[in-house]
Amino acid sequence: MSKPLAFPGLAEFAAATAGRNMTKAAYVAVAAGVVMMVLLTVDPAYEAAHRWVDGLLWGCLAFFVFEWAVRLRHAVLTQRGWAYALSGRGLVDAVGALAVPLALVLGANPKTAWLLGIVWMFKVVPGIPGLRQLRRVLVQESGPLLSVLVIFLMVLFIASVAVYFLERDVQPGTFGSVPAALWWAVATLTTTGYGDVVPITPLGRLVAAVVMICGLGVFGLWTGILATGFAAETRRDNFLKTWESVSKVPFFAALGPAAIADVTHMLRTMDLPARTVIIRKGQTGDCMYFIADGEVEVDLPGKKVTLGEGAFFGEMALLGNNLRSANITTKRVARLLVLDLVDFRMLMARHPDMAETIDAEARRRELENK
Amino acid sequence: MSKPLAFPGLAEFAAATAGRNMTKAAYVAVAAGVVMMVLLTVDPAYEAAHRWVDGLLWGCLAFFVFEWAVRLRHAVLTQRGWAYALSGRGLVDAVGALAVPLALVLGANPKTAWLLGIVWMFKVVPGIPGLRQLRRVLVQESGPLLSVLVIFLMVLFIASVAVYFLERDVQPGTFGSVPAALWWAVATLTTTGYGDVVPITPLGRLVAAVVMICGLGVFGLWTGILATGFAAETRRDNFLKTWESVSKVPFFAALGPAAIADVTHMLRTMDLPARTVIIRKGQTGDCMYFIADGEVEVDLPGKKVTLGEGAFFGEMALLGNNLRSANITTKRVARLLVLDLVDFRMLMARHPDMAETIDAEARRRELENK
Amino acid sequence: MSKPLAFPGLAEFAAATAGRNMTKAAYVAVAAGVVMMVLLTVDPAYEAAHRWVDGLLWGCLAFFVFEWAVRLRHAVLTQRGWAYALSGRGLVDAVGALAVPLALVLGANPKTAWLLGIVWMFKVVPGIPGLRQLRRVLVQESGPLLSVLVIFLMVLFIASVAVYFLERDVQPGTFGSVPAALWWAVATLTTTGYGDVVPITPLGRLVAAVVMICGLGVFGLWTGILATGFAAETRRDNFLKTWESVSKVPFFAALGPAAIADVTHMLRTMDLPARTVIIRKGQTGDCMYFIADGEVEVDLPGKKVTLGEGAFFGEMALLGNNLRSANITTKRVARLLVLDLVDFRMLMARHPDMAETIDAEARRRELENK
Amino acid sequence: MSKPLAFPGLAEFAAATAGRNMTKAAYVAVAAGVVMMVLLTVDPAYEAAHRWVDGLLWGCLAFFVFEWAVRLRHAVLTQRGWAYALSGRGLVDAVGALAVPLALVLGANPKTAWLLGIVWMFKVVPGIPGLRQLRRVLVQESGPLLSVLVIFLMVLFIASVAVYFLERDVQPGTFGSVPAALWWAVATLTTTGYGDVVPITPLGRLVAAVVMICGLGVFGLWTGILATGFAAETRRDNFLKTWESVSKVPFFAALGPAAIADVTHMLRTMDLPARTVIIRKGQTGDCMYFIADGEVEVDLPGKKVTLGEGAFFGEMALLGNNLRSANITTKRVARLLVLDLVDFRMLMARHPDMAETIDAEARRRELENK
Repeated sequence: MSKPLAFPGLAEFAAATAGRNMTKAAYVAVAAGVVMMVLLTVDPAYEAAHRWVDGLLWGCLAFFVFEWAVRLRHAVLTQRGWAYALSGRGLVDAVGALAVPLALVLGANPKTAWLLGIVWMFKVVPGIPGLRQLRRVLVQESGPLLSVLVIFLMVLFIASVAVYFLERDVQPGTFGSVPAALWWAVATLTTTGYGDVVPITPLGRLVAAVVMICGLGVFGLWTGILATGFAAETRRDNFLKTWESVSKVPFFAALGPAAIADVTHMLRTMDLPARTVIIRKGQTGDCMYFIADGEVEVDLPGKKVTLGEGAFFGEMALLGNNLRSANITTKRVARLLVLDLVDFRMLMARHPDMAETIDAEARRRELENK
Repeated sequence: MSKPLAFPGLAEFAAATAGRNMTKAAYVAVAAGVVMMVLLTVDPAYEAAHRWVDGLLWGCLAFFVFEWAVRLRHAVLTQRGWAYALSGRGLVDAVGALAVPLALVLGANPKTAWLLGIVWMFKVVPGIPGLRQLRRVLVQESGPLLSVLVIFLMVLFIASVAVYFLERDVQPGTFGSVPAALWWAVATLTTTGYGDVVPITPLGRLVAAVVMICGLGVFGLWTGILATGFAAETRRDNFLKTWESVSKVPFFAALGPAAIADVTHMLRTMDLPARTVIIRKGQTGDCMYFIADGEVEVDLPGKKVTLGEGAFFGEMALLGNNLRSANITTKRVARLLVLDLVDFRMLMARHPDMAETIDAEARRRELENK
Repeated sequence: MSKPLAFPGLAEFAAATAGRNMTKAAYVAVAAGVVMMVLLTVDPAYEAAHRWVDGLLWGCLAFFVFEWAVRLRHAVLTQRGWAYALSGRGLVDAVGALAVPLALVLGANPKTAWLLGIVWMFKVVPGIPGLRQLRRVLVQESGPLLSVLVIFLMVLFIASVAVYFLERDVQPGTFGSVPAALWWAVATLTTTGYGDVVPITPLGRLVAAVVMICGLGVFGLWTGILATGFAAETRRDNFLKTWESVSKVPFFAALGPAAIADVTHMLRTMDLPARTVIIRKGQTGDCMYFIADGEVEVDLPGKKVTLGEGAFFGEMALLGNNLRSANITTKRVARLLVLDLVDFRMLMARHPDMAETIDAEARRRELENK
Repeated sequence: MSKPLAFPGLAEFAAATAGRNMTKAAYVAVAAGVVMMVLLTVDPAYEAAHRWVDGLLWGCLAFFVFEWAVRLRHAVLTQRGWAYALSGRGLVDAVGALAVPLALVLGANPKTAWLLGIVWMFKVVPGIPGLRQLRRVLVQESGPLLSVLVIFLMVLFIASVAVYFLERDVQPGTFGSVPAALWWAVATLTTTGYGDVVPITPLGRLVAAVVMICGLGVFGLWTGILATGFAAETRRDNFLKTWESVSKVPFFAALGPAAIADVTHMLRTMDLPARTVIIRKGQTGDCMYFIADGEVEVDLPGKKVTLGEGAFFGEMALLGNNLRSANITTKRVARLLVLDLVDFRMLMARHPDMAETIDAEARRRELENK
C-alpha cells in the first residue's frame, strides 16, 4: 500500500472511498456482512454453507479495514488526520474495522466476535436522505418531547409501585419486586402487552386500565409534537433548497426580492440524473418546469430541440392543453423547478406580467411546431 | 363470442366492462368470490353447502374471464391491445382470469388453487376514491418516510443482536439465533407484543423496554410525516377541483384572476347524483350553493322553479334566516360549489360588491315568494 | 298521568325532560343503571346486595319509561309526535324504555334481559360536547378514511390467505381455515397482538412482520387524515361561534366588515355560569375580556362596579401591569370574548385606533381608582 | 434550627431550597430515594447491600423533611405560611416528608412503608420544562378530548356486554361477568392485547375485530386533536417569548408596531449560559444573531471584541460567505434572537432598509478585519 496511486483502479477506489458519500460497493458490503453475521447464528444454515458465510464475512471485514486505511491515509495527506479519526464517522470506521479482529484476538468465541459486525450498520447513517431534517425536528421540539418523557417515566414508576403493592401477595412469582412490576408497566404503557405478566386482582386491573389509557395519551402527545415540528421543518427545508435555484433563473431574477420570496414558496426543486424522461408524450400533465441547472432535450416530430439553463417547458399543460405533446428527457444531471397547476393559477393572479410571458412563449412554440 | 353486438344486453355489458370504472356487478363478483374462497377453507361450512360454494366460485371465475376477454377485444379494436394487456390493470385482469385455471390444470389441490382468487381483490383498486391522493402523499414524503424506515431497520437489527447475545444461554429454544431474535424485535418495535418470545434476563428486559419506547418514537415520526403531507395534499386537491368549476360560474367569472384564486380557496366542490335532496325544508342551514353544472328544482308552495348553471340558492341561511324555507332537489347529475357561512363572511368583507349582489337577489326572491 | 300539570314538581320535570338537553337526573340514572347492570353479572356482588341492585335497576327503568312517556306526550301536544318518535333520539328513548320489559315478557333469563340496559348509554350522546365537530370531521374526510379502510381490508385478506397457506400444515389447529387466519391478521394489523395464534414458520413470520409494519402505516395514515381534518374544523368552529358575538359588541361594530373578520380570528368565545370568578386579584394575567352578553362585577376597594354588555376589562395586563388588581366575577350567565396577549399585539399593529381607545380607557380607570 | 443563618452554608441552602426551582441536590435525592426504594423490594439486592439501601433511604427522607421545614419557615417569615402549606407544592413537600414516617409509626411493614417514597417523584414536576405548554393544550382541547373519552367508554361498555353475552357459556372462567369482559375490552381497545382473555367464538371474535379497529380510530382522533392543539400553542408560546426581547433591541425598536409583529414571527429566542460557544470558526452557518440581553466575545485574530445588547453577529453567513470566520462565545448569561436564513430572505424582501443596514455593517466589519 506504499504506492496505491500506481494502480488506476485503486486510485479511483481511494478517491471514491475518501469522499463524503458511500460507494455502492460499501452498501453491498454492509448488507452482505450483516446478512452473513445473521446466518452465522443459524446452525443449519451455517452447517450447510459455512465456507460461503466465513468467506463473505472475512471479505467484508477486509473491505472495511481497507476502506478505513485509505480514508485515514487520505485524511493524513490533507492534514486532517486527527479530525477524521476523532469524528463520528472516523470512529465508526475504526470500530467497524477493529472490533471483530480485536475480539477474536482476545479469545472470544468466533460466533460471538462476529456479532460485533452489527456496528457496520452505522456506516449507512450519513447516506440516509432525511436524517438531517429529522434531527432538526428532534432538537427543535426537545423541550416538549422531554416533558412527555418525564411524564412517561412518572406514570411508569407510580403504576409499578401501585401494582406491586396490589399484586405481590397474589402473584409473588411475577410481581415479587418493583423491577418486575416495572417490566410489566413498560410493556403496558407502550401498549405492547406481551401478556407474560398480567395483574389479576380487580384493583390491579383497574390500575392497568388507567396505565393503558395513559399510554394512548402519551403516544398522542408524542405524535402531536413531532407532527407539529415536522410541518415547520418541511416548509423551511423546501424554501431553502428552492431559493438558491430561483435566483439563478433569469426568468425570475428580474423580479424584486419580495416577489422572489413569493415565487419561491410556489416552486419545488427536483434533481434528476441524466437521460431521465421528465415528460412522456400523451400523458396528462399538471405542472410546468424551469431549468435551474443542466439541459433537457425535447423530442419534436422530425427534430430535437435542446433547452438550457433558464428555459421553461411543459407550460401548455397549464394553459388548457392537458395532454403532453412531446417526450422530454434530461441530457445531463439537471435541477428543475416545478410549478404546480395550483400555484401557476396563484402566480397568474399575483404576477400577471409573468403569466403573460409564459403565455406568449407557449403561443410562439405552438406556431413553430405547426 | 363472434358477434357479441348481436345481443343488446351483451353489448351494453361490453361497453360498461370496457370502461374505466368497474360496474356494480364486478364489485359483487369480487365480494362473492372472496367470501366463497374463504368458506371453501372452512370444512363444516363447505360440507354443508359445497354446491353453492363451488357454483359461485366457478361463476365468479367465468365472469372475470369473460370481463378480461371483452376488455382485451375492446382494446384490440381501438388499437391499444398491448397497452391494455401490459398496463397494471390489464395484468390484474389477466392474472385474475388465468391464475386459478392454470393452477388447477397444473394439478394443484383445488382448495389451494382457489386461494389464488385473492388477486381478484386488486380489481377494486381503481375504484378506491382517495387512492390517488394517498399515493401522492407517499411519493412527496418518500424521503423522510424512508429515513424512518432505515432507522426502524437499524433499531431492529441492533436490538436483535443485543437480545440474542443476552438471552441465548437462558432461552436457547426461543432466542437461539438472530433471526429468532428478529422475530421478537419486530413484534416488540411495532408494539404488537405477541408474548410468544419474551426476554427474561434483567438486561434483556432493559433492551426490550428501550425498543418499545423507540417503537412509539418511530410510530410518532411516521404519523407526523404523513399528517404533514396529507394536510398539504388536501389543500392542493381541493383547490384544483374547485378552480375549474369556479371559472365556469358567470357570477365569479367577472372577477379578476386574483379574486378568483381568492374565492376558490373559500369554495368546496360537491358532486351529486340525480334526484338527491340538497336542502330539506325546516332544517337549519349554514351554507349556500352555486350550480357549476346540472339543474336543481326548488319546491315552492304551489309551483316548482328550476335553477340552471350559474344560479345560486340557499343564500337566505347566510343572511339571518336560519331555517331552510323549501325543499331543493337535483334534477340530474349536478356539480355544486358550496360556500360555508364562515367563508361567506370573509367574502362579504373582501368583495362587498359580490355580497351585495347575493343580498339583492335574496331580497327579490323573498318578495316574489310572499 | 291524566293531569300532570296539577303537580308543580312534575310539570317542571316534564318541561326539563322534554327539552333538548338531558337533566342531571337522567345522567345519574344512566350511570346507576349501567353500574347495576354490570353488578348483576358479578355473582358474589349480586348475592350480597341483590335487593339494592334489583331495586335500582327497576327504578332506572321506571325513570326511562316515564321520561319517554312525558317526551312523547309533549311531542304529541306540539304536533310533532311522529317526528319525535322516529327521530334518532325518540328511537333510543323507546328502545331504552321497552327493550328490557319486552325481553322479560318474552321469557328471557332476567340476567340476560337486563343486559339490554346497555342501550341506555346512547342517551348521553346528545350531551357530548364536541360530538358534532367530530362528526363533521369524519364526514369531510370520509373519502380518504374510506380509502385507508379499503387498504386495511385488502392487507387483511391477502395476509390471511398467505399465512393460511404457509401455516396450515404446521398448525392445523390454529390456522386451519382462512377465517382463523383472519382472526390472527386483524389482531396483528391493529398491533393488538394477543399471542393466542402466532405463525411459527420462517415465511409465515416474514409475512407477519410485513403486516405489523403495514399496521403502523395504516395507523399513521388514519391519524394524519384525522389530524388534518380536525385542524380545519377547529378553525371553522371557533370563527363561527365568535363572529356572532363580535358583531354585537359596540366596540367592534364600528369597524368595517373586513376588520371584523380580521378581529374575529383573534378572539375566543367563553361562556361562563353566574357567580364565577373570572379574574382573581394578584394573579398574573395574559388576556383581556369583552362582554358580549351578561354582566360582571368588579370588586374594587370600597366599592363594587358593574360592567354590562359591550364593556371590556382586564386590559391592564396587556399594557405592562401583569398582576390583576381586582377580583372580577360574573353576576349572571355571561358570554365573554377573550383577547390573548399575542393577538392584542397584532391588533395594536393592524388597528392602532382600537389600541388607543383601550389604552385611553385603561388610563382613565387607573386615575379613577387612585 | 433556631439560628440557621449563623451557618453560612445552611443559609445558602435555605435560600436555594426556598426558591421556586429545585436545587440539583434535590434532583439527586429524588433519584437516589426512588432507586433505593426499588432496590428494597429486590430481595437479593437488599440482602447484599442492606446497609447502603437503608442508609440512603433515611438520608433522602431526612433531606426532604429538612427541605420542607426550611421552606415552611421561609414562608412563615414572609407571611405566606398557609399559602405555601396549602399550595400543590407545599402539600407534595408535606406528604414527601411525613408519609413514610407516619406509616412506620402506624406499624406498617417497613418494605411497604417505604413504597410511599414514590410521592417524592412529584417533586420534579415544577422542573419539567414544557409542562405548562402541555397543560394549556389539554385545557384548550378539553372539549374534543372529552368527547373522545366518552366515545371510548361507550365502545368499552357496549363491547363488554356483547362479548360477555357471546362468550359466557363457552368460557365461564374468563368471561364470567361484565367486569371480566371489561378487562378484556380495555386491553383490546387500547391495542395492548395481553392475550390472557381472548374470545373464541366466531361472533365474539368479530366483535373483537371491530373493537380493535375502533381502538385505532379513537387513538387517531386523540392524536389528531392533540397535534392540532399543540401546533397552535407552539406558535403562541414562541411569539410571546420573542416579542418581549424584540422590542428591547434598538435595531428593531425603530420599526412601527406592525413591522415589529411581523419581525417577531421570524425570530426565535435562545437563552445561553455564560462561556458557551455560539459560533465555531470554520463551521457552516445558516442563521444570524441579535443580542437581546448579555454580552458575547468575538475571537478575532490578534484581538478580542466584545459585543453588547442590541448588537448583531453571524450576518456574513446570510450574505454569501457560508463559513463562520471567528469563534464567538457568551461572556455572561445571554439571551439571543436567532434569525434563520429563510426568514432573513423574507425580511430582506419586506423590509429592504433593514437588510441594507445589516449589509452595510457586514461590509464595514469585513474591511476592518482585513
